[in-house]
Amino acid sequence: MKLVIDCLGGDNSPEAQIEGAVIGIRKHADLSVVLVGDEGVIKTVLEKRGVHDSRVEIVHAPGVITGNDKPTDAIRLKKDSSMIKSISLLREDESVDGMVSCGATGTLVAAATLRIPRVEGVRRPSFCPILPTMTGGIVGVCDSGANVEVTPDMLQQFAIMGSRYLEAAYRVRKPRVALLNIGVEEEKGDDLRREAYRLLKKTEGITFVGNMEARELLTGDYDLVVCDGFSGNVLCKSVEGTALELLKKIKKDIYSKKKYQMGALLMKKMFKEEKEFMNYQNYGGSVLLGSEKVIVKGHGSGDRAAMRACVDQAYRMIRNNMNPKIASSIAACLTEEEKQNQK
Amino acid sequence: MKLVIDCLGGDNSPEAQIEGAVIGIRKHADLSVVLVGDEGVIKTVLEKRGVHDSRVEIVHAPGVITGNDKPTDAIRLKKDSSMIKSISLLREDESVDGMVSCGATGTLVAAATLRIPRVEGVRRPSFCPILPTMTGGIVGVCDSGANVEVTPDMLQQFAIMGSRYLEAAYRVRKPRVALLNIGVEEEKGDDLRREAYRLLKKTEGITFVGNMEARELLTGDYDLVVCDGFSGNVLCKSVEGTALELLKKIKKDIYSKKKYQMGALLMKKMFKEEKEFMNYQNYGGSVLLGSEKVIVKGHGSGDRAAMRACVDQAYRMIRNNMNPKIASSIAACLTEEEKQNQK
Repeated sequence: MKLVIDCLGGDNSPEAQIEGAVIGIRKHADLSVVLVGDEGVIKTVLEKRGVHDSRVEIVHAPGVITGNDKPTDAIRLKKDSSMIKSISLLREDESVDGMVSCGATGTLVAAATLRIPRVEGVRRPSFCPILPTMTGGIVGVCDSGANVEVTPDMLQQFAIMGSRYLEAAYRVRKPRVALLNIGVEEEKGDDLRREAYRLLKKTEGITFVGNMEARELLTGDYDLVVCDGFSGNVLCKSVEGTALELLKKIKKDIYSKKKYQMGALLMKKMFKEEKEFMNYQNYGGSVLLGSEKVIVKGHGSGDRAAMRACVDQAYRMIRNNMNPKIASSIAACLTEEEKQNQK
Repeated sequence: MKLVIDCLGGDNSPEAQIEGAVIGIRKHADLSVVLVGDEGVIKTVLEKRGVHDSRVEIVHAPGVITGNDKPTDAIRLKKDSSMIKSISLLREDESVDGMVSCGATGTLVAAATLRIPRVEGVRRPSFCPILPTMTGGIVGVCDSGANVEVTPDMLQQFAIMGSRYLEAAYRVRKPRVALLNIGVEEEKGDDLRREAYRLLKKTEGITFVGNMEARELLTGDYDLVVCDGFSGNVLCKSVEGTALELLKKIKKDIYSKKKYQMGALLMKKMFKEEKEFMNYQNYGGSVLLGSEKVIVKGHGSGDRAAMRACVDQAYRMIRNNMNPKIASSIAACLTEEEKQNQK
């Protein structure tokens, strides 16, 4: 198995990317990596870490794409950038199975959508980040921003892709799938949600448990939530923001009284664990489901451990044949007419 | 000033509603209330509390509308319910200025939309709940669920109505208005957001500060966030859910070790304050902006203090002439053509 690692574009690039990849090949004997970035810098980092392994290749592409680059311009003009070069390798090199990048999301989605074929039958690739639930489990949110406007059958595909993903990457059995809505009753929401509800109810290969209100996301009662990319983005970011802001407030309030400070001293380890628990980077990156080659988008501020989680995630998806399973699940849901049209 | 109080439909009905109203008239000498519910029960509660005040009227309407009632059926068939009776009083009695209800949201919105005229120029009434920010302030979210599908000029009106509301009810000066989006740049999001951005930028009478990502809601950098009712609902509920689940988890973790329990003992007061801080009921109810008579929807589980906050809120909106100000702000934004059409 071979993964392309885009070594630039993250806050801790390229060290975190290189080190995460190295941990990955040490863990998985059948994994090799292609490190894409500034060749000289990559060599220096590897040298420092004493890495001499034939499973590490280097491809020189020193340009960086940032969030300020317009995706279409970046794709056209920044061919020497590590991200566009990585996408090209993914597209052209048949021996490459997947890619991990912590670079600019917009350009990554645009480049992947334009350059990498989709899994057969998939209408639109979609993002599926993973959040920790308060009962110690995880929950996936699909789509979280790749598709701002969606149709009911796109939501159906998000449910299928997300289910196969949770099975392959996290060994979740029969993932419980919910539709994000403004109430739990079947007839709630707009036409899109009502039609999606009807469709999800009769979709084979998924375990649809009904509508879910945003309030319930972290309860542990759901494994996957499907939604349009706009509200999915709002959902993930507000969970993240609220947790961070609340922990920040608690920290501030502790300093308001000597007594609280003494109490907090006893609870120091616990608070540190809560913070780690809410740190999404520990749960791997956001996966672009539906792309024929596995693409994991790590958090821009990810460190070595976060990067390593992304590499692990990509490894499991490929090793457990996620994409062929997505293709056959989707084929099973196509009507005869749709099958004819595909031919 | 006269307010109708729907005394049924809440978890703590009718005591919380009656007591909240009584606190209200004791605070405001120019306020009188009409308590709508089961006359016998209301009389008993008032008797017990020793309330004999000519500013308290009672209207008998013992029926209750629950979340299980279909709004259209409830409006048509449950005319003896406290909620529909309250709406009728609001509509027919010119001396009544506003209403507070903790009953079923769906029926309240439907009944208010059908029966109560809108403020001149307003296209659609919209909900605006208030959330506490981590810097000790508040932030309004408009719309939070009354309008699942919206247009750019509806978003513009939400910005205008929300601004006048924050000024009248919370004395916020020049409320900073943001558009909820999936990124901060002007061109982010779908056509709806891009068009709304252009419109908000040139809207007089509001202080538009650009796009906001859901992550930033509680930072204290914004006073009002405008959005479609679907993503607004997701936003409010995920903030609420995350805060509650996180505090619940911390509480559970405390019990995992003796040391943490000792620490928590010292911090008991602080934790209680955090919980109170995140208790949205303390900040008043969700207001249905754009209705010609003020309508405040209190939380179903609200207690006496929550109910009193709702009464206060309604009082301030009416006393500070919120609705006439909304009407003139909206008129100022109409084009000449629209003004002609209105005539």
